[in-house]
Amino acid sequence: MDQEFFWYLLGTLAAVLTTFGFVPQIIKMRKTRSSKDVSLMTLFQFSAGVLLWTLYGFHIGDIIVVVANIISFLTLVVAIGFYYHYR
Amino acid sequence: MDQEFFWYLLGTLAAVLTTFGFVPQIIKMRKTRSSKDVSLMTLFQFSAGVLLWTLYGFHIGDIIVVVANIISFLTLVVAIGFYYHYR
Repeated sequence: MDQEFFWYLLGTLAAVLTTFGFVPQIIKMRKTRSSKDVSLMTLFQFSAGVLLWTLYGFHIGDIIVVVANIISFLTLVVAIGFYYHYR
Repeated sequence: MDQEFFWYLLGTLAAVLTTFGFVPQIIKMRKTRSSKDVSLMTLFQFSAGVLLWTLYGFHIGDIIVVVANIISFLTLVVAIGFYYHYR
């Protein structure tokens, strides 16, 4: 495998893992119908962070940064919705 | 304020918010002494993600990416420890 391709794959895998990092938390809240131990502050702090990353992505003109953080934000909106629904 | 300085501050704030995103979750587990609703898979998925980001940071020679993700990883190690301790 080409070295650059290896690093491209590794970077992509890193991005996918962190972008979809809250999906297992969403699934767990849905399954157990409980969210009381989940930190709402963590969800809001990540939401604010990825929104700022999205703006920063537009500024540096990096579409990957923009798209990854918009997807992250959407998963966080669902997580926050489930937090309130199941708490 | 200089425009570039504004974007520098915004990028830094984005990085700080997401790097320390699990700190409120750690504090909540410690306070409530309970972790059963927290998704261990989310913690492991983020851990794997930030480790790969760290390697990628070394590859692209970006010290900020390296340091931010190592700090993130350390908070995740604490979070995983608390998860097992308080579940």
